[in-house]
Amino acid sequence: MKKILLISLLLLGIKMGFAQSIERIDPQNWWVGMKYNTITLLVYGKDIAGLQPSLSYEGVELMETQTVENKNYLFVTIRIDAAAKPGNVKLKFSRSKKVVLTKDFPLLQRENDSASRKGFSQKDAIYLIFPDRFANGDESNDEIASLNEKTIDRKDENARHGGDIKGIIDHLDYVASLGFTQIWCTPLIENNQPKYSYHGYAATDFYQIDPRFGTNEMYKELSMEAKKRGIGMIWDVVLNHCGAEYYFIKDMPEKDWVNFHGTRTRTNHMKSTLTDIYATEIDKKEYVDGWFDDHMADLNQRNPLVASYLIQNNIWWIEYAGLSGLREDTFSYADKDFLATWTKTILEEYPNLNIVGEELTSNVAQVAYWQIDKKNEDGYRCYLPTLMDFSLTEKIISSLNNTDQWFSTWRDTYQSVAQDYLFPHPYDQMIMPDNHDLDRFYSRLKKDFDNWKLGIAMYMTMRGIPQFYYGTEVLMTNEKAGSDGQRRGDFYGGWKGDTKNAFTGAGLTEKEKEAQQYFSRLLNWRKNNTAVTDGKFKHYAPQKNDVYIYFRYTDNEKVMVLLNKNSEAVTLDLKRYSEMIDSSFKAKDIVSGKEMEVAGTLTIPAKTAMILEVK
Amino acid sequence: MKKILLISLLLLGIKMGFAQSIERIDPQNWWVGMKYNTITLLVYGKDIAGLQPSLSYEGVELMETQTVENKNYLFVTIRIDAAAKPGNVKLKFSRSKKVVLTKDFPLLQRENDSASRKGFSQKDAIYLIFPDRFANGDESNDEIASLNEKTIDRKDENARHGGDIKGIIDHLDYVASLGFTQIWCTPLIENNQPKYSYHGYAATDFYQIDPRFGTNEMYKELSMEAKKRGIGMIWDVVLNHCGAEYYFIKDMPEKDWVNFHGTRTRTNHMKSTLTDIYATEIDKKEYVDGWFDDHMADLNQRNPLVASYLIQNNIWWIEYAGLSGLREDTFSYADKDFLATWTKTILEEYPNLNIVGEELTSNVAQVAYWQIDKKNEDGYRCYLPTLMDFSLTEKIISSLNNTDQWFSTWRDTYQSVAQDYLFPHPYDQMIMPDNHDLDRFYSRLKKDFDNWKLGIAMYMTMRGIPQFYYGTEVLMTNEKAGSDGQRRGDFYGGWKGDTKNAFTGAGLTEKEKEAQQYFSRLLNWRKNNTAVTDGKFKHYAPQKNDVYIYFRYTDNEKVMVLLNKNSEAVTLDLKRYSEMIDSSFKAKDIVSGKEMEVAGTLTIPAKTAMILEVK
Repeated sequence: MKKILLISLLLLGIKMGFAQSIERIDPQNWWVGMKYNTITLLVYGKDIAGLQPSLSYEGVELMETQTVENKNYLFVTIRIDAAAKPGNVKLKFSRSKKVVLTKDFPLLQRENDSASRKGFSQKDAIYLIFPDRFANGDESNDEIASLNEKTIDRKDENARHGGDIKGIIDHLDYVASLGFTQIWCTPLIENNQPKYSYHGYAATDFYQIDPRFGTNEMYKELSMEAKKRGIGMIWDVVLNHCGAEYYFIKDMPEKDWVNFHGTRTRTNHMKSTLTDIYATEIDKKEYVDGWFDDHMADLNQRNPLVASYLIQNNIWWIEYAGLSGLREDTFSYADKDFLATWTKTILEEYPNLNIVGEELTSNVAQVAYWQIDKKNEDGYRCYLPTLMDFSLTEKIISSLNNTDQWFSTWRDTYQSVAQDYLFPHPYDQMIMPDNHDLDRFYSRLKKDFDNWKLGIAMYMTMRGIPQFYYGTEVLMTNEKAGSDGQRRGDFYGGWKGDTKNAFTGAGLTEKEKEAQQYFSRLLNWRKNNTAVTDGKFKHYAPQKNDVYIYFRYTDNEKVMVLLNKNSEAVTLDLKRYSEMIDSSFKAKDIVSGKEMEVAGTLTIPAKTAMILEVK
Repeated sequence: MKKILLISLLLLGIKMGFAQSIERIDPQNWWVGMKYNTITLLVYGKDIAGLQPSLSYEGVELMETQTVENKNYLFVTIRIDAAAKPGNVKLKFSRSKKVVLTKDFPLLQRENDSASRKGFSQKDAIYLIFPDRFANGDESNDEIASLNEKTIDRKDENARHGGDIKGIIDHLDYVASLGFTQIWCTPLIENNQPKYSYHGYAATDFYQIDPRFGTNEMYKELSMEAKKRGIGMIWDVVLNHCGAEYYFIKDMPEKDWVNFHGTRTRTNHMKSTLTDIYATEIDKKEYVDGWFDDHMADLNQRNPLVASYLIQNNIWWIEYAGLSGLREDTFSYADKDFLATWTKTILEEYPNLNIVGEELTSNVAQVAYWQIDKKNEDGYRCYLPTLMDFSLTEKIISSLNNTDQWFSTWRDTYQSVAQDYLFPHPYDQMIMPDNHDLDRFYSRLKKDFDNWKLGIAMYMTMRGIPQFYYGTEVLMTNEKAGSDGQRRGDFYGGWKGDTKNAFTGAGLTEKEKEAQQYFSRLLNWRKNNTAVTDGKFKHYAPQKNDVYIYFRYTDNEKVMVLLNKNSEAVTLDLKRYSEMIDSSFKAKDIVSGKEMEVAGTLTIPAKTAMILEVK
């Protein structure tokens, strides 16, 4: 009824000669000198389809104008030639050859070396921040009356708690001091949903930072401030879906803008249908097209207008905010041909950028399917450089928790890493003890501090790009397994009046302080160790003595890692390791800080990691 | 000391002019018209290396004579041209041009169509017999004084129990009546080991049936008798190792005849080292070269004389006994280049034969690595047609046992089968509820008869070549999990005086009888259903109703399988399955035997499998 009333009023307005307006043009600007130089502007405004766009600007050509089912949309494709100079393109919209509306469309100058920017890599370590729960730097934006979820409530784990971009900027020195060189924030864009808006994955405007987090300009400032500290920013992208309150969902351009619009059929989460030679069409469709949640509209990326909207949006943010990479949420839930195009297009624009995709399964072959250069059985080819290693996450935890396993409790971990032959670029995987969708590492280890130290030492030295979730460094837990709200607990000291403060150390227990120091010492050491950040990996099959031993090495540097889970010290005869190291050598143990002279045998204390920088 | 004495006596004997003798020539004969026509005879006899072999036979040429470190061996390579006629080649052995020994080497005529014989396939079902435990048909061969393990003891689960080839021949009608078309016996060749000789995997003569099982001729008779009943024979091959009592292990031809001879280092069982790009040389070596058990010498197939010995032996048995296929034990524990040569050579000789390899892991990518036509990341290429699907074995059991799993308890099973895209020939996999190395299916299902019936119905209809272990049809169990002896229990009725008899039905419980009838009815039906034996497979993702539904189909036939694990009946709206079937159809349910007329919906009773032969 509401819709009918609106349309009636609209038609009446036009008839009566009310001035038309443009509510928005997405994207709001572009840059000169881009490879991706043919862009399709989504122009949204009441009955805008009745107008005729035109422009006159040297080096810019209007290529195509498309109208769609919904008359409130106009899609205008322009090409910006290499010769075009920065400036304002004036877009004119006419009816009966009379200009009724004019809009500026700025063409900006790119940052120097924008195209060749370097993405995150094994050289980096990534700090994953959940912005609503990290630090509340600006209380004035906690509650915004015009938005659907109006209040904050720190006692409700599913409500907003007030964390924001200002809070992150305020604590960049802390992040840098821990040894991080990248920050990945979960989505900061507007989530004007009535509930659960705190998590950010139900976007209602891909082009706008949520005002409760700050502004676009403030995010850009965060990126600049981070860069000053040697920290790159990774943007969390959702291609698969958006919030049901997105303007183009409430007033859809076309029926096929989203999948399963009428039924909101949920996804079956059956990833295997992507490659299964026996899968039925309905199951394949329900996996990809099904809704992740009934308040998250599943975008149809097979619609070329949806596809270009998403691609342009991501390039826009990279260029606008000076990003070092993207993280793509629920990767394989989007259309797979689109995913190939999306990754290829972004890497054509930024050949050294990195993109990490979330394919949440321990089935390694299924994960490797997406990596660039993978030769798949079905001929499919994606261009995704980095994948998250969920298999390792699971296996390290099972190795650390298990007490009796055939041969060695490390066997699971060893055999997980051993599957790397399935990846064309195995060192480009992201490794993580946990993230915002998993129970916290320390909880899963049943708060065994020795095992936590063993695990952290491994993530500091294992092949791949380590990512740590905020709070891991001070042993944050979620008491209730499976609780999303608790996995995303408020960081200590992020709120005025917090008695416990991880930034200053105030109120931390001795164990939390020890953890923070252990963590920070190792990560700062890692930063400058090229054997770890740039070297090869080699590991020995764990034996009955239950010590996992591996090496990172370049031509000049060598690090030997020994992880002893036993409650007794273990003495190794070094002859076994002759392929990688002499029986006698000098080293520094980064964990204990001790200089060592090793001759023939090596004793690893009980429940201890040794990280030996070999001289 | 003993050895020195022996050698001294030998030298003395030669000096004194004692007649030399040949203890054996392996193989003892060959055939004309083989592709594999250049064979290397292992000639074994005291100080035989001092003699010069020669022969004169039309179409047969002596190509090469090799002596090795041990003077008791001579390796004589002969080529049998296409023109050679059957007959006895006289091998002469001379010293100083004087013939001191003569041996007949028969060249036999091949059976008609020997080269084009058909191997087992999806059309078949395989009955796996553990011969010592199936039936004692000949008590006179139970105990043989000249062998190292002299007695039988049915009360000792690790001792021999007396089963033999005669026992199998006696019960071929039973096997045929169950609906089987193939028999795989675990190894029948001589295992003259002091302990555990019952299992057959520690061969002491690859060319000789163990006398406690019978004779070579009797095995050939078994094969012929089986063929009369439409049953093919699958030979169990062990390439990786042999018993420490093998003559060529006790008196080794060369130091490198076996791996790790001095240390008997055990294998680390780390299969992952085969493909792991980070594995160390010592771990790779210990996996492949390590001993499976310390009484099983690990053969070095990189030694060309070992390789030809093994290849010839397998071809010899195929040709001699009219086999329909091979099963290769502990597949990947042998040298992988040799495995490629071995599979290729055998399939060149018998292009339609089948070989199934045991790669005991649930890691599907690791299993698929070996299948013929697989394009591996490392370029390795094997020629193995069939692999055992251990992933499915594990997942069906977990699906049947689990009561609460996300979405559906069938999810594990569905996603296991979904990994078939990794196989070039997915339908050629062998599927089995269990085998002699696993706990028995009914035990693993905690003796839940409904679940047993669901599982059996699935193995009768699932893609792949079903293999059932003797006794599965009458619910045999192993009460102690992990006990090899109990997994290999005496079959009911195989011994005189058994009060319980699966052959006659005497003494079986009502449940066991019902199981046997259920099993036999389904398997005999399967035999003639081309949708199952030759059709395609398609499955629906299990949904919250926890029913797993799949189809087997050809252009003309269709079978719909519905597996309902719930303790309540489930009614399906058939619209969902329109890709595969109309909403209304006529069918016969093979499980209940009922003719059905389906219209719109279909109700599957609680805890029941339906196998609908659609009309």
